[in-house]
Amino acid sequence: MSLNSFGHLFRVTTWGESHGPALGATVDGCPPGVPVAAEDLQVWLDKRKPGQNKFTTQRREPDQVKILSGVFEGKTTGTPIQLMIENTDQRSKDYGDIVEKFRPGHADITYWQKYGIRDYRGGGRSSARETAARVAAGGVARNALQALMPGIEIKGYMTQIGPHKIDRDNFDWDEIDQNPFWTPDAVAAEDWAAYLDELRKDGNSVGAVVEVVARGVPAGLGAPVYGKLDTDLAAAMMSINAVKGVEIGEGMDAAALTGVENADEIFMGPNGPEYSSNHAGGILGGISTGQDVVVRFSVKPTSSILTTRKTITKSGEPTEIITKGRHDPCVGIRAVPVGEAMMACVILDHLLLNRGQVGEELPGKIG
Amino acid sequence: MSLNSFGHLFRVTTWGESHGPALGATVDGCPPGVPVAAEDLQVWLDKRKPGQNKFTTQRREPDQVKILSGVFEGKTTGTPIQLMIENTDQRSKDYGDIVEKFRPGHADITYWQKYGIRDYRGGGRSSARETAARVAAGGVARNALQALMPGIEIKGYMTQIGPHKIDRDNFDWDEIDQNPFWTPDAVAAEDWAAYLDELRKDGNSVGAVVEVVARGVPAGLGAPVYGKLDTDLAAAMMSINAVKGVEIGEGMDAAALTGVENADEIFMGPNGPEYSSNHAGGILGGISTGQDVVVRFSVKPTSSILTTRKTITKSGEPTEIITKGRHDPCVGIRAVPVGEAMMACVILDHLLLNRGQVGEELPGKIG
Amino acid sequence: MSLNSFGHLFRVTTWGESHGPALGATVDGCPPGVPVAAEDLQVWLDKRKPGQNKFTTQRREPDQVKILSGVFEGKTTGTPIQLMIENTDQRSKDYGDIVEKFRPGHADITYWQKYGIRDYRGGGRSSARETAARVAAGGVARNALQALMPGIEIKGYMTQIGPHKIDRDNFDWDEIDQNPFWTPDAVAAEDWAAYLDELRKDGNSVGAVVEVVARGVPAGLGAPVYGKLDTDLAAAMMSINAVKGVEIGEGMDAAALTGVENADEIFMGPNGPEYSSNHAGGILGGISTGQDVVVRFSVKPTSSILTTRKTITKSGEPTEIITKGRHDPCVGIRAVPVGEAMMACVILDHLLLNRGQVGEELPGKIG
Amino acid sequence: MSLNSFGHLFRVTTWGESHGPALGATVDGCPPGVPVAAEDLQVWLDKRKPGQNKFTTQRREPDQVKILSGVFEGKTTGTPIQLMIENTDQRSKDYGDIVEKFRPGHADITYWQKYGIRDYRGGGRSSARETAARVAAGGVARNALQALMPGIEIKGYMTQIGPHKIDRDNFDWDEIDQNPFWTPDAVAAEDWAAYLDELRKDGNSVGAVVEVVARGVPAGLGAPVYGKLDTDLAAAMMSINAVKGVEIGEGMDAAALTGVENADEIFMGPNGPEYSSNHAGGILGGISTGQDVVVRFSVKPTSSILTTRKTITKSGEPTEIITKGRHDPCVGIRAVPVGEAMMACVILDHLLLNRGQVGEELPGKIG
Repeated sequence: MSLNSFGHLFRVTTWGESHGPALGATVDGCPPGVPVAAEDLQVWLDKRKPGQNKFTTQRREPDQVKILSGVFEGKTTGTPIQLMIENTDQRSKDYGDIVEKFRPGHADITYWQKYGIRDYRGGGRSSARETAARVAAGGVARNALQALMPGIEIKGYMTQIGPHKIDRDNFDWDEIDQNPFWTPDAVAAEDWAAYLDELRKDGNSVGAVVEVVARGVPAGLGAPVYGKLDTDLAAAMMSINAVKGVEIGEGMDAAALTGVENADEIFMGPNGPEYSSNHAGGILGGISTGQDVVVRFSVKPTSSILTTRKTITKSGEPTEIITKGRHDPCVGIRAVPVGEAMMACVILDHLLLNRGQVGEELPGKIG
Repeated sequence: MSLNSFGHLFRVTTWGESHGPALGATVDGCPPGVPVAAEDLQVWLDKRKPGQNKFTTQRREPDQVKILSGVFEGKTTGTPIQLMIENTDQRSKDYGDIVEKFRPGHADITYWQKYGIRDYRGGGRSSARETAARVAAGGVARNALQALMPGIEIKGYMTQIGPHKIDRDNFDWDEIDQNPFWTPDAVAAEDWAAYLDELRKDGNSVGAVVEVVARGVPAGLGAPVYGKLDTDLAAAMMSINAVKGVEIGEGMDAAALTGVENADEIFMGPNGPEYSSNHAGGILGGISTGQDVVVRFSVKPTSSILTTRKTITKSGEPTEIITKGRHDPCVGIRAVPVGEAMMACVILDHLLLNRGQVGEELPGKIG
Repeated sequence: MSLNSFGHLFRVTTWGESHGPALGATVDGCPPGVPVAAEDLQVWLDKRKPGQNKFTTQRREPDQVKILSGVFEGKTTGTPIQLMIENTDQRSKDYGDIVEKFRPGHADITYWQKYGIRDYRGGGRSSARETAARVAAGGVARNALQALMPGIEIKGYMTQIGPHKIDRDNFDWDEIDQNPFWTPDAVAAEDWAAYLDELRKDGNSVGAVVEVVARGVPAGLGAPVYGKLDTDLAAAMMSINAVKGVEIGEGMDAAALTGVENADEIFMGPNGPEYSSNHAGGILGGISTGQDVVVRFSVKPTSSILTTRKTITKSGEPTEIITKGRHDPCVGIRAVPVGEAMMACVILDHLLLNRGQVGEELPGKIG
Repeated sequence: MSLNSFGHLFRVTTWGESHGPALGATVDGCPPGVPVAAEDLQVWLDKRKPGQNKFTTQRREPDQVKILSGVFEGKTTGTPIQLMIENTDQRSKDYGDIVEKFRPGHADITYWQKYGIRDYRGGGRSSARETAARVAAGGVARNALQALMPGIEIKGYMTQIGPHKIDRDNFDWDEIDQNPFWTPDAVAAEDWAAYLDELRKDGNSVGAVVEVVARGVPAGLGAPVYGKLDTDLAAAMMSINAVKGVEIGEGMDAAALTGVENADEIFMGPNGPEYSSNHAGGILGGISTGQDVVVRFSVKPTSSILTTRKTITKSGEPTEIITKGRHDPCVGIRAVPVGEAMMACVILDHLLLNRGQVGEELPGKIG
């Protein structure tokens, strides 16, 4: 019941603050015999790493992950895997101004009220740096999925920045890794660059929508009622810093559909059931259908902006604040690998849960 | 780690199928000494009960709740409270047609694939009847909240049906209980009635959006990272049948905002911090701010429709299906008390969690 | 984290009081497709049922179990199984004397202090009647084990009553079901009968030791550190009313052994490793070896005795109490099927856990 | 549901192997504002540290603990505390002989069977070195107890080594810290020294019994059925390496008592109820009475002995083994601080649980 853990059988506990000596993830329940090397995890951490281009913060954090336990001779042992990332760029002097003031949109004020602690060094535990630990853990999950069910592919990308959405007609899976926004729409990528540049110069920031798809997920993962695959995905994504909404398949737009429009009709394909559409986002009754699992989440605009906002001090005095420092104009960009990591962890967890309760072969055959 | 349970300290496990002898909820961890009577719970069950008006299913289910344990001389004992609702209107003959066919949009096919069980009697465990158990448990949570923190008020209402949204300028808190849609916009209520009538006659159905607000929640509930108040709310709402999206505060629309627009500026009020706006939905960094906690979720259109859809049989043969029976044209209406129940359970759970870790008085004072 | 639940994947939550309308168990996580009928469970409940012979309480409790959910057409559906036992013999008038007094050795005083509730009707939630729900749940676990791994046999028996231990040389597996003490030593059974008769006439009671063995458990169940098979067995047995000690293999006597004496030497047998002895009780490092899993627990003497003891009232006044009513002179006898039920639940749970993390075939071969 | 975690609200996850780069504990759920410094924890680690005298292993492990997170400006922040102990003396060459052979009494064979991993470097995850992490976490629990309820004192000591028990008449609380066996009987301490010396010279080892007492625990901690204080204590102690039996109060000897002998009669004292004796070990119905909480556990003899034992290799060939290296002749000695640490963690956890469910003041007054 740890409040810093998620997952049932594949269970991840993250720890650490933005400006302490280190942060990391304790990964318990990983199947044994999975090949895992630090370099495998580093690939995903590098994708999330700041300072990659002008649209992300210029802080330099090498985010080098070390495996302290749970891997022996290159393979997981089935015991806890400790992943540690040392904090090297702890320029806490940048934060001197906010020791007494609460930053609007940040967790400064609620952490203070709840814990009586004012960790002014860049957010402490509530910093988005915590997501580095998730990405490392997600890398372990990816390797385990690769070992257990090699056909699963997980990919995240941006579909909206500020008011600008992608054109689904331009959707190109191969474009995703080709632009700084991880977006499948090359046209949008160009427009967004200009838009974001403008905002950054204004000392402003903006929100975004990220979509994460898992392909090749077999039918049968999930469970009724509170162990639903979509329940766990919603929790996983909502737990990411700055996320304010989560959608499965049609998401909020399902409200506007009629039953006739929304029905994913069922056909028999060569390898099992197929569907005329995927309004459901690959999940029916909390259990995967075998279609793509599609999750979408919104990320609010970065709260640290160079525009003056009104706030109060710890002693309740009115004041103003400008959050200097090196901040992302759109944290949604770096949320892409985080969403992927959460998807990987949830899918693996449900794969193990299903194997535990039902076994390696599903009992219900069709055809 | 029960897959049919939710909550950390206030923990609810629901059980039962739509057409078995009974269904119910096992409620563990309730504080002792809370006055609870079956009649208190019945109020909320009656709100959810079908057959209330022409916009909900005409099945007659009295949904009478019995308390089998955990209450002695009118007060909770601190031990498990068993809430049982007997199924009385089990017209399973209505479902004869679907023994072999999978209903599109329903969990028939995924339950079959996962469990090898085809409970054709109205959905079995995946039936929306399961939510009656949640509403009963939510009634217990409401009484406990009333005992522990009397100022908390929880209210749900519809803000959209199909493409028709309410006009926020018409918002009237007192209107909510005056119309069959639990909507705060009296004008919308009339328009929706006509719209839904039409759809129902066409054998069609439609989706909806429900908003649930908790007023009077103190600052400090929630916890970082995976024990966030919004994480648990997202999971709670997404676990309700037919829900496809969950939003906190601005929700998906947060993506379209800039940082300047999104900032809830902070002021000092007579009783503590106040905010210029509530884009955050009352939660910062996973912890409540003391503002209204605002959650919104979409409900997909009822999948049981009187329009023919294509599907397959258990043996993989192509076929067609019309789902006869007595179904809600918009399940979103009856989802309102369910959303309220989940909110009550989550808020109570976090109240207990906070009291456990931090104590009855928060350490961080302002002013 | 329900305080009335145990198990990881196969998870049992019991509910109900000795004198309420009913008590029962909510069983979640059972594999689907397991044949389960009420009669299967009744066999074990009858074994525990009071009034079977003169050495157990003369209360008549039919303890008839009803399955309210989770079983369809004779097989488990994979969703929660609700097992309900209605209380029929609720002679609460017998307990009138103890409304104000605390019974020494009972939980009356601690429940009062913690919950502010004095359920004087026979112990309420702390009554040994709660174990009927465990026995019913254990029956489900037995059927699941039978379906998944038919070779497993679970058997409990008494090895000591008061100061009188069995003679291990008389151990006869087939004798266990032939005497009212479920003991494998026919000679002891006769001696004990005389001894217990005497005690009962004196208005006294006595403790006992119960041993439970699981044969045919495969190697590999359990997990390191806190998910150890022996950890979960210790918790399971210690959670039974009146249990004060739990032992695995040599148990407390392991303290008196030297390393040379204690070593179970390893040999290669036709079907895998074999051991020269089983001091370890079938568990090494928290993981089963394939030998018999051997657990032993002590049960304290019944606290309800016909001998006057000193106590106090709720208002703190000194007084005396004799606990009339119909009580077991040795609750250890009826603890035998309870211990078996707990063993069945734990073994099944670890079978599912192991299948979840490691899969259906263990990776480490010998030879 | 992590298999390497324990505790409900105060939750400890340990990680790491005997010969990896480091091991440690992730401590979640600690109340905020508790003063914690590495030196506070080091006191307890030093008590457990090997090489303190000739009766413990001569390996030199400085066991220096580092706090990587969760403590800011000397106080806990309420977020996860990461405690890391680097492994410095990793003489893995000592273990070359056991790469292919299984050591009787060790977890080598079961880990191999379950995980397909043979971490021959001193036991890997199953090494007793894991308990260093528990001791560090227990240090945090002690500081939190000190902050929340200063009157609680936790003390462990040996009461038996091999067949030699202490004489309870010699019991001297102040003697405990004065001898290498942490025993309250000065006479026994001398006898044991001679006895153990002899055994060590013979290349043999021996078991022990450790008793841990918590004084000043308030009435009301614990919960019915599976959240019992004694259930959690039994699990906590049984999870320690080499433990084979756990007792509360009278423990296994409760079997030999009659009800008349076993009754702890109740009197009214100046500060609440008092008892004529403490057969119950301070727990009734799973809930603390306010008396001393008394737990006892047996530790089997060290399995690594200098006497030849029969075993097999990974390929199933019969062979013999002598476990060289630097081993404790009686691991029970170093189990004392480990038992204390587990007691501290469990008591704190139940203090928080009780505060969560029931609040800071218990409702049931006496007198």
